[in-house]
Amino acid sequence: MSEVRRAETFVFLDLEATGLPSTDPEVAELSLFAVHRSALESPQRDESGTPVLPRVLDKLTLCMSPQRPFTAKASEITGLSSECLARCRKASFNGAVVRTLQAFLSRQEGPICLVAHNGFDYDFPLLCMELQRLGAHLPQDTVCLDTLPALRNLDRTHSHGTRAQSCKGYSLGSLFRRYFQAEPSAAHSAEGDVHTLLLVFLHRAAELLAWADEQARSWAQVEPMYTPPDGPSLD
Amino acid sequence: MSEVRRAETFVFLDLEATGLPSTDPEVAELSLFAVHRSALESPQRDESGTPVLPRVLDKLTLCMSPQRPFTAKASEITGLSSECLARCRKASFNGAVVRTLQAFLSRQEGPICLVAHNGFDYDFPLLCMELQRLGAHLPQDTVCLDTLPALRNLDRTHSHGTRAQSCKGYSLGSLFRRYFQAEPSAAHSAEGDVHTLLLVFLHRAAELLAWADEQARSWAQVEPMYTPPDGPSLD
Repeated sequence: MSEVRRAETFVFLDLEATGLPSTDPEVAELSLFAVHRSALESPQRDESGTPVLPRVLDKLTLCMSPQRPFTAKASEITGLSSECLARCRKASFNGAVVRTLQAFLSRQEGPICLVAHNGFDYDFPLLCMELQRLGAHLPQDTVCLDTLPALRNLDRTHSHGTRAQSCKGYSLGSLFRRYFQAEPSAAHSAEGDVHTLLLVFLHRAAELLAWADEQARSWAQVEPMYTPPDGPSLD
Repeated sequence: MSEVRRAETFVFLDLEATGLPSTDPEVAELSLFAVHRSALESPQRDESGTPVLPRVLDKLTLCMSPQRPFTAKASEITGLSSECLARCRKASFNGAVVRTLQAFLSRQEGPICLVAHNGFDYDFPLLCMELQRLGAHLPQDTVCLDTLPALRNLDRTHSHGTRAQSCKGYSLGSLFRRYFQAEPSAAHSAEGDVHTLLLVFLHRAAELLAWADEQARSWAQVEPMYTPPDGPSLD
């Protein structure tokens, strides 16, 4: 996509929500780690050569009360519930979330590339719906990258499409275990999953940066997961 | 301080900066963990009874380029430098930091109590200076608590002022090692220190909440660490 400018900041993203796409879910937790391209081009490593999180990292994690109830499964795997969010007096995904997000992103050198695992099928359309409901926008030159098809395609290219490669697991947990021979920490908290995603990205940073430069999609092309119900507009 | 309303949200705070107060430092990294009072009143614990971080936790970490150089010591202990912040194209402590901070705080049920270790002598006057330079304000009913004098006083009361107690170390690291028999992680990154501070607070949560209700000071009484130089006003 030659018309898309090279992203300067990569914003790793995960959403926890009330359920799967078929349930018209709402966001309950959002986490973003913003990392400048320069920190991905030459990742820091520990003594054993394993990539570690960049020292210069901006982070935003927000919890919010959805109006819709959690499915039992979503509540079980995220550890969140309407009750615990209400007890902590969390407001909904409202104008203050948008203002925090926009001000946070305005601190990052653009263009921004949002990165999520399974982002095209889940996080991006879900975030798009929440923003559309509030009439809110991301910077116009924002692009997005889904590490799930990106890593599948990179492996397919390397292995010339052998069956062994394509049968590997590509869940975030499977990738992390394969790359780091360890269990991911805090799975299914938004922040825990972004932490895991960033480490997975760092393990293949050079290839994924090249992929992003060629294949990242414009955020403007993302469609909302579903037509948002009438809600409060941006205050 | 009976005129101060009971805080509903505790915002744990740490700043990393270019040096000690005598050097007129500037903030280079800021981290906030916002925790609702209800999560501090009944902390979650692991199987061994050790407090763990609340599941519902809002977090904000921002890095910024100070205009002043780091002292060698500050750069060594924080792992930050003007060069690495410039390489990541970090802007200064500017209006976008203030907007992010204000929008983040507006998501929290008020009144807010800011909590920092050695806060009265370092983090609060330093944050106050940066905000004053930009003509920015925190919510009017904000209060603040310094866990360093609070824990010293609580121990003195319990031990009836015996010498043994008052000679204990009260650095954040000493407290953490004493309470958890472990080394704190990521010391002198802003987020690492807030993580340690929150766990230390959780270890003595009931006493510290009672202390906050009686002794928290109004934020309005905090004086800036030094007179801010003329800088850009809030854009």
